[in-house]
Amino acid sequence: MATNTQVRLAARPSGFPDASCFRIEEAPVPEPKDGEVLVQNHFLSLDPYMRGRMNEARSYAPPVAIGDVMVGGTAGEVVASKSSSFAVGDKVVGAFGWQEYGVSDGRGLTKVDGELPLSVYLGAAGMPGVTAYVGLYDIGEPKRGETVVVSAAAGAVGSVVGQLAKLRGCRAVGIAGGRMKCDYVVGELGFDACVDYRSPSFADDLRAATPDGVDVSFENVGGPVMNAVLARLNAFGRVPLCGLVSQYNATEPYALENVAALLWKRVKLQGFIVSDHMDRWPRALADLSTWVAEGKIRYRETVATGIRSAPDAFFGMLRGANLGKQIVKLI
Amino acid sequence: MATNTQVRLAARPSGFPDASCFRIEEAPVPEPKDGEVLVQNHFLSLDPYMRGRMNEARSYAPPVAIGDVMVGGTAGEVVASKSSSFAVGDKVVGAFGWQEYGVSDGRGLTKVDGELPLSVYLGAAGMPGVTAYVGLYDIGEPKRGETVVVSAAAGAVGSVVGQLAKLRGCRAVGIAGGRMKCDYVVGELGFDACVDYRSPSFADDLRAATPDGVDVSFENVGGPVMNAVLARLNAFGRVPLCGLVSQYNATEPYALENVAALLWKRVKLQGFIVSDHMDRWPRALADLSTWVAEGKIRYRETVATGIRSAPDAFFGMLRGANLGKQIVKLI
Repeated sequence: MATNTQVRLAARPSGFPDASCFRIEEAPVPEPKDGEVLVQNHFLSLDPYMRGRMNEARSYAPPVAIGDVMVGGTAGEVVASKSSSFAVGDKVVGAFGWQEYGVSDGRGLTKVDGELPLSVYLGAAGMPGVTAYVGLYDIGEPKRGETVVVSAAAGAVGSVVGQLAKLRGCRAVGIAGGRMKCDYVVGELGFDACVDYRSPSFADDLRAATPDGVDVSFENVGGPVMNAVLARLNAFGRVPLCGLVSQYNATEPYALENVAALLWKRVKLQGFIVSDHMDRWPRALADLSTWVAEGKIRYRETVATGIRSAPDAFFGMLRGANLGKQIVKLI
Repeated sequence: MATNTQVRLAARPSGFPDASCFRIEEAPVPEPKDGEVLVQNHFLSLDPYMRGRMNEARSYAPPVAIGDVMVGGTAGEVVASKSSSFAVGDKVVGAFGWQEYGVSDGRGLTKVDGELPLSVYLGAAGMPGVTAYVGLYDIGEPKRGETVVVSAAAGAVGSVVGQLAKLRGCRAVGIAGGRMKCDYVVGELGFDACVDYRSPSFADDLRAATPDGVDVSFENVGGPVMNAVLARLNAFGRVPLCGLVSQYNATEPYALENVAALLWKRVKLQGFIVSDHMDRWPRALADLSTWVAEGKIRYRETVATGIRSAPDAFFGMLRGANLGKQIVKLI
């Protein structure tokens, strides 16, 4: 009998998680009931928000319960169908979590036409892409000629943010960790500049890269990097607050020093979560898919292989070891 | 010859200002030229923003130069006119600063009809009132039944914010320093509750006063009080950031701890300055004047007498010694 290998939450981390937080189990492949489909997941998406779900405290979504399969977006293929809406062979994006198979009554399952490689619907043409689109265009509201800065610029969301900024006619400046990532962001993604936050000259480099200040700061990491960018904000700057990945494993949060600048520069800082903006998904996905197909939005993936590699790949992503979208290839 | 007594900036403060920062001078009363009017100021407005103008660093407005008359809003009467737009006896609001007389070519000078006591055009029916109106209604966007919290609730801006919240059908909760101010805020201004931030049970009291959480936090003071209110914010809360009076004399800024809550609660925090919203002033002033005349917005003033009392009154205001609008009565 085929098995469904799963990664379940075994224990809540204190600080940076390790292998003891997860437990790998072999379960039977589930049987679809009437109206349901069985999906074999080809790709699992690994994303920073998952770290938050490992905590006990409720944030915007309930935590994963101890013993439950870890949550996550997946892309795969229908392998058995008792639903009139799906046929065997349909390619679908869903949220089956860290496991090889899943059953669904169709809710939360989206057929994709397969014009792009399937994994891209977990990245630039999926949730991270829509996050970039909504956060930059709807909350950041960049205007032609303005300067957009994005942290974690080589990541799944950040890499799209900068390219969307370029499409809008903005100056796009990335912040990333290390020379290799910065070279990728400028050379391959077409940002105007990228600053290495690990460099001792980071603050000076950021200033040099933003000669006209910063109009939109798309914030993915928080902490000292966020403080440095706030110091470069122009009057009426906008800060879409998308993530604080530098803080997710911190036991003591890094406090934001420059609150006064938010006042006297009349900054709008707005936290957002892409699932609150479902009305924007169809348009965003249509635009993103088109632009990816046309080569206007480029992407890379860091691919781990096999469901058992998910925990290590996840730790790597939290440390910034990935370039572009971190996925796990399951078959 | 009549003299024009003036308060000039003598030195920039480090931390809390004292008398050595100011110099009082007797100047001749200026002569209006063709097209100009001479105004005798009856009232000088003292406001927290003035502390920022004493610093060397440019914020949203240039600093007062050493030796210059301190800036400030004034209300007075035209006593000589070489302008076709103003007649002797006209009541006017302007920005002549900390002095007894001023000349103007009419720019920045607004005639008021005198239906309300003249000083009110420096308070509830003036800049502080418009600040409350724009910050609460345009940025805070409170909806009927929501909870609005405002710090410095017994002050010129905060007292109007809570009353505007009540007019919108919201629960209004003030934060103020001491029992006397809290009693005034609830008993006289009609807020639903007021919490004393000096009390050791402040956090518990705030929780009890906001049983349904906080939807709009109109922020006037910053610091630990701001952190405490952020912890009570509901999802999609709004924070009009109007002032940080607890920080204006701090040499080390208080850092904002709870940045993560801004993200996962999807908070919009927006700094604003009322002079950016000149298009809203006519409507705001019309509404505020009407509501004050009808008794729907109540106010109090703390009145110092004579221009020479301005520095001490200003220090008192920065310490929160005033109840309602701090003004200086000049004649």
